Amino acid sequence: MLTLRTPYLLYLGDARSETDAKTAKGLRDWCPGQVLGEWSLPTCAVQLGLPRLSPAEAGARGAGSLVIGIASVGGALPDAWVPDLLAAIEAGMDIVSGMHTRLTSFPALVDAAARRGVRLVDVRHMQTPYPAGTGRKRTGMRIATVGTDCALGKKYTALALTRALEARGAKATFRATGQTGIMIAGSGIPIDAVISDFVAGAAEVLSPDNDADHWDVIEGQGSLFHPAYAAVTLGLLHGSQPDYLVLCHDPTRRTIEFRPDFPVPPLDEAAALYLQLARLTNRQVRLAGVSINSSSQTEEEWARYRGELEALLQVPVSDPIRNGMDPIVSTLPGV
Amino acid sequence: MLTLRTPYLLYLGDARSETDAKTAKGLRDWCPGQVLGEWSLPTCAVQLGLPRLSPAEAGARGAGSLVIGIASVGGALPDAWVPDLLAAIEAGMDIVSGMHTRLTSFPALVDAAARRGVRLVDVRHMQTPYPAGTGRKRTGMRIATVGTDCALGKKYTALALTRALEARGAKATFRATGQTGIMIAGSGIPIDAVISDFVAGAAEVLSPDNDADHWDVIEGQGSLFHPAYAAVTLGLLHGSQPDYLVLCHDPTRRTIEFRPDFPVPPLDEAAALYLQLARLTNRQVRLAGVSINSSSQTEEEWARYRGELEALLQVPVSDPIRNGMDPIVSTLPGV
Repeated sequence: MLTLRTPYLLYLGDARSETDAKTAKGLRDWCPGQVLGEWSLPTCAVQLGLPRLSPAEAGARGAGSLVIGIASVGGALPDAWVPDLLAAIEAGMDIVSGMHTRLTSFPALVDAAARRGVRLVDVRHMQTPYPAGTGRKRTGMRIATVGTDCALGKKYTALALTRALEARGAKATFRATGQTGIMIAGSGIPIDAVISDFVAGAAEVLSPDNDADHWDVIEGQGSLFHPAYAAVTLGLLHGSQPDYLVLCHDPTRRTIEFRPDFPVPPLDEAAALYLQLARLTNRQVRLAGVSINSSSQTEEEWARYRGELEALLQVPVSDPIRNGMDPIVSTLPGV
Repeated sequence: MLTLRTPYLLYLGDARSETDAKTAKGLRDWCPGQVLGEWSLPTCAVQLGLPRLSPAEAGARGAGSLVIGIASVGGALPDAWVPDLLAAIEAGMDIVSGMHTRLTSFPALVDAAARRGVRLVDVRHMQTPYPAGTGRKRTGMRIATVGTDCALGKKYTALALTRALEARGAKATFRATGQTGIMIAGSGIPIDAVISDFVAGAAEVLSPDNDADHWDVIEGQGSLFHPAYAAVTLGLLHGSQPDYLVLCHDPTRRTIEFRPDFPVPPLDEAAALYLQLARLTNRQVRLAGVSINSSSQTEEEWARYRGELEALLQVPVSDPIRNGMDPIVSTLPGV
C-alpha cells in the first residue's frame, strides 16, 4: 500500500479560483490534523485560511510532504512552480502530486530528490506490484460505496460514513482508492492505476484481516454503468468483498458524465446489479443505504424524494451534507 | 496495438515434455504460414516436426522474430538459453517472450538488442498507453468468446470461429488478447496487462471500425465468475461491444480453477449475466452458441449433453474439435 509522509504543506501554485484548489480544500476539511499550512505564488488568487508557511519554514516544523493541491493543470508543470518544489525538496520533504503529468518527468526534480533522498510521489500513477485476488474471506466488517456514475460523492460518502461510525464509538478506517482520498488518508491504493489482472488482488491488500468489530469503509471508484470504467468498479467490488454497500447518486444526473448516450440507471436496478455481482465474493452482502447529493432540491422536494426512495428500496436514504450518515450507520449491526 | 515481426523461429530451449512446448505447438498448428522452423538445445526432449534452423540460418531466411515457445519457466531465464538468444539478436531478429520474467531484465540481452536495433518483446508485460473507452458504436460485426472460467477454450474457440467464418467466405479477423493468441495473430493487445482504467478503451482500439460485413472474432479473457479476473473480463466485454457471444465451458470443471470455493455457474445463469452486462455497450447483443470441451465424454454422452444444452439455451452447441464451429457460424446473419 502507498503511504504518504505527513504532515503536509499544501501548495496552491498560481491557482485562479476556488475550483482549482478543490484537492487542497478537501485535505483542509477532511484531515486538518495532518495539514501544517499553505503556500503559493504571489499571483495565486486563492487562500485556504491556513498558516502561510514557506517550504523552508514548513520543513523546519517537520512537514513530511509538499502536496500539490491543484486539481488539474494542463500538460506541463508550470516553470514558475519549480523553485518552490525545489525548495521543499531541499527542506527534506517528499513532493506529492495527483497531476496527469508525472513529477518524475522533470529531470530537475528527479535530480534534486535523488540528491536529497526524498520521494516524488505521483499518486495517480503509482504502480506497485500486487498479487492476484484469492477470494479468501477476510475477518472484520467492510462497507463500500458504489455509484450510479463517476464523480457523484463516493469519496465524500465514504469519509462521512467513517466519521459517523467513529462518532458512535465504532472502530473504523477509511480505505482510499483515489488520489485525493489517498492524500486525505495518508495511505491507500490508486486502484485505477493498477494493472487489470491485479485489481481485485490490490483491493484485497487494501482491507486486510481485521478485528471482527472493525469497519473498513472502502472508497468506491467508477460505476458498473460506465462504458469506460466498469472494470475498475467490478475488480474493486470483488476484492473488497463488502458486507454492506452504500449506493451514491445525484438525481440531476440523467446520463453518464461525458457519455451522453449512456443513461444513468434507475436506483433499484443499480442496487440489484451491484448486489448480484458483489455476491460472488460475499454471499451475505446487503444494501445498507443510499447517499444522495440533494443540493439541487428544496427541503420539501428532498423530503418527498427521500420518502419515495426509502419506500422503493427499503433502506435509509440520506444526504451526507444535509443529514450526515448516521441514519445509515445506525442500522449497521453492532454499531 | 502490439505487432510482431513475422515469420518466426520457434525456440524450445531445453523443454522436457510436450506440455512444456504448448505455446510452440499452438503456433505450429494455428499459423503454420508464419513459422519458418524450430530450434532448441541438444538437451531438449521435444521436436515439433518443423525444419531445424539455427538462429543464423533462420535470420538468413528472413525470420523476423525468435519466439520462446515454452509455456512457463520459473523465475530466471536459463543461462543455457542466452547464447541462442544472442545469436538470434545478432541475426537481426526480435526476441518474443510470454514468460513472467522479462527479457528486459537481462542486461546482456538489452545491450545486444540495443546495439543490433532489434526489440525484446515481453508480450505478457507490454504496456502501451491506451485511451479511456468512449462507448461509441463502431461499424462492422463483432463476436466474442466468453467463459464460465479461465483456461477452458476461449482462444481455441475464437480461432476455430475465425476459420469457420473464412471457410464460408466471410471476412473475419481473429483479435488476440492473450500472449499466445498475439503470437498466433502476429498482433493484438495483452488485455490483462493494461492499466484497469483503460481496459475498455484498449478493447475499443483492438477492433476498430470495419466493413459492415466484416467479423472481428475477439478472444475472451478470464471469467465474470472468477474472483481475481472478472474485471479484465468486463472491461474487455464493454470495449468489444460484441453483437454475438459464444459461451465456452468445460463440463468437468465444477469449481473455478485454483479457487475451489468458487463454483462454476450453471450455463443458463452464465449466459444471462454475460448478456446483461454486454448490453451496456450493445443493446442488440445475443448468444450465438455454446462451445464445449467434450473430451471427457463418449460420443453418446456428448450427444445427450449437447441435446440437453441446446434445449435449455435455444442456441447451437458444438465442440470445436469434434464438430468445428460451423454449427454456430452458420446461424450468423449474412454468413
